Amino acid sequence: MRAAALRSGTIYVRDDAPEPEPQFGQVLVQVKACGICGSDLHFAQHGTEMLALGTEIEGMPDLGAPEVDLDADIWMGHEFSAEVIEAGPDTVAPAAGTLVTSIPILLSMTGIRPIVYNNDIAGGYGERMLLSAAMLLEVPNGLDDGRAALTEPMAVGLHAVNRSAIAPGEGALVLGCGPVGLAVIAALKLGGVEHIVAADLSPARRAIATAMGAHEVVDPREEPAFDAWRRSGGTRDVVVFEAIGVPGIIDDALRRAPSRARIVVVGVCMQPDAIHPFFGISKELSVQFVLGYDPMEFADTLRHIAEGEIDVTPMITGEVSLDEVAGAFAALADPDEHCKILVRP
Amino acid sequence: MRAAALRSGTIYVRDDAPEPEPQFGQVLVQVKACGICGSDLHFAQHGTEMLALGTEIEGMPDLGAPEVDLDADIWMGHEFSAEVIEAGPDTVAPAAGTLVTSIPILLSMTGIRPIVYNNDIAGGYGERMLLSAAMLLEVPNGLDDGRAALTEPMAVGLHAVNRSAIAPGEGALVLGCGPVGLAVIAALKLGGVEHIVAADLSPARRAIATAMGAHEVVDPREEPAFDAWRRSGGTRDVVVFEAIGVPGIIDDALRRAPSRARIVVVGVCMQPDAIHPFFGISKELSVQFVLGYDPMEFADTLRHIAEGEIDVTPMITGEVSLDEVAGAFAALADPDEHCKILVRP
Repeated sequence: MRAAALRSGTIYVRDDAPEPEPQFGQVLVQVKACGICGSDLHFAQHGTEMLALGTEIEGMPDLGAPEVDLDADIWMGHEFSAEVIEAGPDTVAPAAGTLVTSIPILLSMTGIRPIVYNNDIAGGYGERMLLSAAMLLEVPNGLDDGRAALTEPMAVGLHAVNRSAIAPGEGALVLGCGPVGLAVIAALKLGGVEHIVAADLSPARRAIATAMGAHEVVDPREEPAFDAWRRSGGTRDVVVFEAIGVPGIIDDALRRAPSRARIVVVGVCMQPDAIHPFFGISKELSVQFVLGYDPMEFADTLRHIAEGEIDVTPMITGEVSLDEVAGAFAALADPDEHCKILVRP
Repeated sequence: MRAAALRSGTIYVRDDAPEPEPQFGQVLVQVKACGICGSDLHFAQHGTEMLALGTEIEGMPDLGAPEVDLDADIWMGHEFSAEVIEAGPDTVAPAAGTLVTSIPILLSMTGIRPIVYNNDIAGGYGERMLLSAAMLLEVPNGLDDGRAALTEPMAVGLHAVNRSAIAPGEGALVLGCGPVGLAVIAALKLGGVEHIVAADLSPARRAIATAMGAHEVVDPREEPAFDAWRRSGGTRDVVVFEAIGVPGIIDDALRRAPSRARIVVVGVCMQPDAIHPFFGISKELSVQFVLGYDPMEFADTLRHIAEGEIDVTPMITGEVSLDEVAGAFAALADPDEHCKILVRP
């Protein structure tokens, strides 16, 4: 089959990618749409550092996954919708042709593997892939396959907001309006948060932030984000969502946040970062790092999108074929040009 | 009156320190005992940097305090017990001779001032000082003035534990067994936490940690603190208390902590510090910075000490006169020699 692969830092298309074969508990699906995630861009550029950093951490579950070989074909694409083709042996699955999505986890008889970037499991940047029958969600309400593919990134926002435990009467300041920040804004709006300030350098991204539910957007070159919050937030306590993920942002938030503010770090900064603990101590700040979502949050998000409670339409700024994936990776560097690009294998 | 002063980084004794005069709402007291705090040591060595860092922070209340002049006399000492001498005009206070303590805050007609380090408010390293009548707490139960003086540092531990929201069934890992870490251990024991692991390089400090309530103590050179937790903590979730306060500790905790652990930063690191946000993100860790206590926690702590629920005796390792304060500052550099030294003006 055809699939885009990453090899030695370069995206190319293979016409003879291995055909996935469903085992017990697995379902073969035809990929309909797959969003390009910022983490894929980051992995393509900084795969070596990302893998090295992963080995330094203690306290993570060992899934027994083989090491990723950056100089062999790597399959990516974890924000997908797909149509069922056929179930594996002795496996119950929705009828062929059913539009589904799933959290990007593949169960097999040998273990649990994330569908993120690896050398042996097909991802959403290819014609076909395997999903876990137990985790399949049918796309309801006639939701189209493009918007269904945004379930995954939007679930990241819902999870961040759930973990923040933002309470009635509190407001939110969202730093960065890439897909993650926008997903946070959508989840905040869904949760009834009455004042949401969002900051981004890009006018296009700020416009999408408004469409997703931000009450006020700010260009931090014209007014620092925390000043905008202080001007407009009234007496509300603030929960800060850091959705930029580059060095320096956490320390800046510690420096500028109001006393006892909660900072939720949902942007994924892969580099070492410098902070002043004294800023956090002086104001009794908290920093909650968050990642991903749980299966219930993923299912909730699909339902919210399908029922029109979250409209992801403004976030989808382009669609490309497999042959255009490499170009799309490059195009996403310009935040005024694109937000979420869907690959149509 | 006689008082120890800090001037240009050096501690010396002045025989002609200004005699404090109580105004409305204030009470003149005779200092009986005053603990030497690690923050005083730090300020004596790094006052310039501490003051500079303070000016960089946004979101702090402006108390209108004058700037601290490091080259004029600076009065310190905020962990005290004292006897009432006389109340200011139109002020109600306990009878002369009553043993009292107070949170180190001085109210006046012009504002609220912390009694920490400043050029114009007497502290506990002198014969007499002013306290706020509204904040005085009588020392109950015949508790002696030495142990009463430990109310302040022990309240820091109670506050940290309260802010941690440690729940029944959870355990604690305390990194560092200086006075702050020991105060945390005492508060954890008081709160009924059933497994407390404490780590410190010093055998003397580890012995005090055991006396204060740690169930297991570890020399991190022999066994890393998190390994000791994993060996002995069973299936409990862990709350980590960082009570060392030097660069590198927070990042090490992020690297080694179990998934979803809460890290409470109660050690005061004044230097910039490097962290890997990715460690926190991968495991959804939270970092709660804490500082000080509230008046209720201070009063609770005094009651716990007076009722014998917290025995601070093992922490008091020395008593010195005003003339010996400079030597005591130096002696506290050796953790095997001393823990808490009381000044007896």
